[in-house]
Amino acid sequence: MAPQLLSSGNFKSLFDSVDTFLFDCDGVIWKGDTLIDGVSQALDLIRSKGKNVVFVTNNSMKSRRQYAEKFKSLGLVSVTQEEILSSSFAAAMYLKINNFPKDKKIYVIGGEGVIEELQIAGYTGLGGPGDSEKKAEWKSNSLFEHDKNVGAVVVGLDPNINYYKLQYGTLCVRENPGCLFIATNRDAVGHMTDTQEWPGAGCMVSAMCGSTDREPIVVGKPSTFMMDFLLQKFQTETSRMCMVGDRLDTDILFGQNAGCKTLLVLSGVTSESNLLDKGNNIEPDYYTSSVSDITKLMDSP
Amino acid sequence: MAPQLLSSGNFKSLFDSVDTFLFDCDGVIWKGDTLIDGVSQALDLIRSKGKNVVFVTNNSMKSRRQYAEKFKSLGLVSVTQEEILSSSFAAAMYLKINNFPKDKKIYVIGGEGVIEELQIAGYTGLGGPGDSEKKAEWKSNSLFEHDKNVGAVVVGLDPNINYYKLQYGTLCVRENPGCLFIATNRDAVGHMTDTQEWPGAGCMVSAMCGSTDREPIVVGKPSTFMMDFLLQKFQTETSRMCMVGDRLDTDILFGQNAGCKTLLVLSGVTSESNLLDKGNNIEPDYYTSSVSDITKLMDSP
Repeated sequence: MAPQLLSSGNFKSLFDSVDTFLFDCDGVIWKGDTLIDGVSQALDLIRSKGKNVVFVTNNSMKSRRQYAEKFKSLGLVSVTQEEILSSSFAAAMYLKINNFPKDKKIYVIGGEGVIEELQIAGYTGLGGPGDSEKKAEWKSNSLFEHDKNVGAVVVGLDPNINYYKLQYGTLCVRENPGCLFIATNRDAVGHMTDTQEWPGAGCMVSAMCGSTDREPIVVGKPSTFMMDFLLQKFQTETSRMCMVGDRLDTDILFGQNAGCKTLLVLSGVTSESNLLDKGNNIEPDYYTSSVSDITKLMDSP
Repeated sequence: MAPQLLSSGNFKSLFDSVDTFLFDCDGVIWKGDTLIDGVSQALDLIRSKGKNVVFVTNNSMKSRRQYAEKFKSLGLVSVTQEEILSSSFAAAMYLKINNFPKDKKIYVIGGEGVIEELQIAGYTGLGGPGDSEKKAEWKSNSLFEHDKNVGAVVVGLDPNINYYKLQYGTLCVRENPGCLFIATNRDAVGHMTDTQEWPGAGCMVSAMCGSTDREPIVVGKPSTFMMDFLLQKFQTETSRMCMVGDRLDTDILFGQNAGCKTLLVLSGVTSESNLLDKGNNIEPDYYTSSVSDITKLMDSP
């Protein structure tokens, strides 16, 4: 069925059929460090009607703790760490669930959030921000050394990507037997600032695919890996969840893959013309301009 | 037919059937800045028998002029610029042949060689080594500006890859109407030093694919784009050429795509077990350990 524009005619039946609203963050709740207008009121209203609210973000730069701080700093003081699922957390959970040995190390191309989540899960992460200023130079008779005990490389969004990290990660994946290659997510671009889009984790992950000839295990959206945590936590069915996001190929596809209802907001990377373009084959159930529309529709007669 | 090990039994018929030997460089002629043993004698011998010698390299770090200097510095003094085809040159030729407007600019993720070849062809290259120390920071209310007059982004091997260059190239490809995305080549790794492999242009090119959701035009091997120059230059048939290389998926595939005879040398990235692995489906006509074997086989009774 073609996506329906959210309206006073269809809003109430959607709202009543949902127990848990899953929100993407970048482009839905905020753009960079700027809160999107009307988000705070809409979230308060949804909660006041007894609905659960969860934030599911592919952005792995921060840990769940750091995201809770960001919500607070933007005035969304009621959001707790337990309501946040980040792909940084998902990467650590993937290793834990798969009994990744605690004596093996993990090389990280990505932000502090991944390192912190690995540490909380009891693992040792190498690389990350600590390797941002390192140089890898081609010198005769000199060997670029890597830790043979690295058993997984986790790749996420890394604005400090460099050749040192790429060589380190590539050597681990190509030369350490059985080394896992895990991607937090593969978003092509994201609204890292309020003014424009920037290369996302898809850029760094694809770079590693290009040098290793390997495909990664993806733990973020549209993979439904994170859904297991949600189902366990809320003891609900996915059909009574609604995924609200700004990206078709991650958020909406994630919702569809999991069997949720889906609502696209046009406040992020997807425009109405992108959505309605003939070339697009990912169609949400509903779409609207912004999360703030929920407040308007709830108040409408 | 399964690849034949080069031997005194099959060498002379191969040698006599070929007018022009095409040599890859990294892993065939040199590793990093170290000449592979016996290469100089083998090249002299091939020339002394009246054969043409051409060097076809995917490594875009240098221009043809810079490669001629490298050959000289390694003692291969007879190699001229006209005998060298580099993917840096191929990128410039691709634009020239396709009448890329001289008033448009080209953003380069890659080395000085690409910038120099563009300049020789009459074009203005931006980026390259000049952007290696630049930082791209996510700041609120601040726009990362790019030149709207960039009509092509050329991506090659870049050991100084950074987020600034990736954001610049991504913005050009995504936002400048009709902007071309050209890859010098997509080698996963290469022997940039004598001791080990390093991420190749495939790494940087895939990074751009990941952020732009676009596939590039590839001008280096295994694309046969460079073959047109060779055919025009030597007025010969491709069946009387032999491509000598160390990579199956670039060199040998290039030779096969063009209809050349193919000889794999095991002095670079491909081992005999890689070659004979069941999973490999690119089979050269012949293989041998190193270019220096040509001297031994020529001298054998």
